[in-house]
Amino acid sequence: MSLLLRNGWIVTQNPRREILRGDILVEDGKIAGIGGVKGGADEEIDCSDCAILPGLINVHGHVANTLLRGRADDVPLEKMLEVTFAADGKLTRRDVQVGALLGCLEMLKSGTTSFVDLFYWEDEVARAVREAGIRGFLAWAVLDPDKTTQRGVPVKNAEQFVEKTKGHRLVSPMVGLQGVYACSEETYLAAKDVADREDVGLHTHLSETRTEVYEHEKGTGLRPVEWLDKIGFLGPRLSAAHCVWVTMNEVRTLAARGVSVAHCPVSNMKLASGGVAPVPEMLDAGLAVGLGTDSPISNNGLDMFSDMKVCALLHKANRWEAATMPAQKVLDLATIDAAKVLGREREIGSIEVGKRADLAVADLRHPHATPFYPANLSSHLVYACRGSDIRATIVDGVKRVGEGHLVGVDEAEVLARAREIAGELFG
Amino acid sequence: MSLLLRNGWIVTQNPRREILRGDILVEDGKIAGIGGVKGGADEEIDCSDCAILPGLINVHGHVANTLLRGRADDVPLEKMLEVTFAADGKLTRRDVQVGALLGCLEMLKSGTTSFVDLFYWEDEVARAVREAGIRGFLAWAVLDPDKTTQRGVPVKNAEQFVEKTKGHRLVSPMVGLQGVYACSEETYLAAKDVADREDVGLHTHLSETRTEVYEHEKGTGLRPVEWLDKIGFLGPRLSAAHCVWVTMNEVRTLAARGVSVAHCPVSNMKLASGGVAPVPEMLDAGLAVGLGTDSPISNNGLDMFSDMKVCALLHKANRWEAATMPAQKVLDLATIDAAKVLGREREIGSIEVGKRADLAVADLRHPHATPFYPANLSSHLVYACRGSDIRATIVDGVKRVGEGHLVGVDEAEVLARAREIAGELFG
Repeated sequence: MSLLLRNGWIVTQNPRREILRGDILVEDGKIAGIGGVKGGADEEIDCSDCAILPGLINVHGHVANTLLRGRADDVPLEKMLEVTFAADGKLTRRDVQVGALLGCLEMLKSGTTSFVDLFYWEDEVARAVREAGIRGFLAWAVLDPDKTTQRGVPVKNAEQFVEKTKGHRLVSPMVGLQGVYACSEETYLAAKDVADREDVGLHTHLSETRTEVYEHEKGTGLRPVEWLDKIGFLGPRLSAAHCVWVTMNEVRTLAARGVSVAHCPVSNMKLASGGVAPVPEMLDAGLAVGLGTDSPISNNGLDMFSDMKVCALLHKANRWEAATMPAQKVLDLATIDAAKVLGREREIGSIEVGKRADLAVADLRHPHATPFYPANLSSHLVYACRGSDIRATIVDGVKRVGEGHLVGVDEAEVLARAREIAGELFG
Repeated sequence: MSLLLRNGWIVTQNPRREILRGDILVEDGKIAGIGGVKGGADEEIDCSDCAILPGLINVHGHVANTLLRGRADDVPLEKMLEVTFAADGKLTRRDVQVGALLGCLEMLKSGTTSFVDLFYWEDEVARAVREAGIRGFLAWAVLDPDKTTQRGVPVKNAEQFVEKTKGHRLVSPMVGLQGVYACSEETYLAAKDVADREDVGLHTHLSETRTEVYEHEKGTGLRPVEWLDKIGFLGPRLSAAHCVWVTMNEVRTLAARGVSVAHCPVSNMKLASGGVAPVPEMLDAGLAVGLGTDSPISNNGLDMFSDMKVCALLHKANRWEAATMPAQKVLDLATIDAAKVLGREREIGSIEVGKRADLAVADLRHPHATPFYPANLSSHLVYACRGSDIRATIVDGVKRVGEGHLVGVDEAEVLARAREIAGELFG
């Protein structure tokens, strides 16, 4: 099965950040040609007046919680978690699968082709991922056994999930950790042990709120990053979400250990985590940083276009400096840098021959996207385009969205089921 | 001509902020009935699973500059103004009309039914407003004669525009002022004189940047608000855009004089104006505050949905308090409070019988808008919905957008003309 994207503006995100005009040939799930492609393919997509960008990569979230969208607005993290945990206790496996599928469809329709998820019942999320045809990096959440509603021992559940799921084309299992407020040294190290043994990624919440840092320092004498370093947990397998309340010293420690960061500006702002993650300093220190939406309960969407714009705006406003976090860098955070966060920069995150064909096509024929200039298309994608401009999304060479509509999934049926469950839970 | 919006979720924005389920009957440009409407109408719009909200009101911008979208990204105000003024010098009257029309179409498609504009050649903007069928509050920009490229005397141009335009159904002329850095005491007072004599509104930029405040204080010994108060310019006719760098004393002065404020969070963030407009304090002081996008060169869009979300996020992040600027208040800033800014709260800004029929219909049948709950639809509109969800927009009882498409305007032709002009100017 081959696919030809014809005559688009290609925002390659390659090392030279080239923007080219032409075609992209997709064969066997890979990008087989870029530029003027001669001959045809099994299917063609006309990309005239469209931007073709690498599929966006959302590096932190809890996709099953798409069902909880709108249940905790204008409240801080602690209250949001109360709502989440109360709901989690009521969710069935089927609910988790429907919620995850709903979120996957939202992501595909707004050009996201990969996402990182932190949750229990990741086996259900994996089902949704396969049904939607998106790329999922799924971290089974490990907590201290006395702090979870999971049946069995969380770290064992995570291990079983990893073993069962490894090797799937679209699903990459990981080991997740809720955070220092819910995981002891023993839990952190047991999780790391599984990840090392299975050779998979680790993902954790880290230094999201002042309370978290304050309480941890009060209890251990060390700030969370310092403590995780001391117990030997930090390493290149780990991507850490938030890192809002980190000192420069902690930034240097994260860099020295090869840890990467999932920056979630919209969620941090909505929950009023306070402060702003020092992303410019992280980048200066050489950390890989990607962009994450976090859960729809604290966002309330999974639209990376919206979040790219907010990311650019937040840091400029925070630093009183309009050149801070320029659009090109923000687009990097949602594409090639996000791939680095996942250690997958040789496979995804840019449009280069030989990489997996994860692509998004944004239609520029809208008033809000007019005029545009090829030379600053990256900037246009960040500041002017919207998730709803996505006309086609291709994951691993397969068209999952075409003409703005989902392919091979009954969207109306998923929406109806999601509404029904939400009605049962909260109606 | 009557119009019936059937079976929607009506976010009334009435004094009790009721959310009702039912129909809206529109007759002779007005809202004639709300609730269960019996009988038919000349045309019906099915609003099942849609939110019907008051048409959004964008209280500050420069719509002709839609042509300059993307020409000054990641640069501060001073650099952005250089680009703008250089382009302004090249724009023909036809360019201004096309740019304004492009912006009007973008606004209508994202549910905005009224906007405030500050520019020269507002007669051309007025043509675009009439062609698009949107409601325009158009302030002809007055500057000191030696600081403008306008032919003739700016205040005379403004006066002629007001006289020629007054009384139009959709166009409300106003007198505009660029700001204290471009307008002397004499200019401010001459403009006020015209507005008083013609009984129209005044609109000015005010205290947007630190530089503006610093330079004005250095030159006059007074901060801009203090100075405008001293010269007798402040009064209930005036809406002032930005007001980022105002002291509490200035907030009290603005309140005492009945001045209203156009808050432009996205533009302020993108230009890194520094600080954050003290909107919570303005509201506490009783000021009318509305939401504005500012020009697409500093935003880069005119999508009030996107800007509502950023407004809610910015103030929470700034105050480390998730309850700051709750969604309901932000929606107020884009509807009924914005109408107060314009002194038109008896005519527009909410869905109440007898008011002008300015309405927007947002389709909730999307993954990103699922699930939703009638009880918190206001919050849903702010945090989850997007400008592109708008299915129908009605201005003064006339359908301007239907099934997501513009009615009575050749969108493709406008886009083509806008691109052509942008190509000539910047290609």
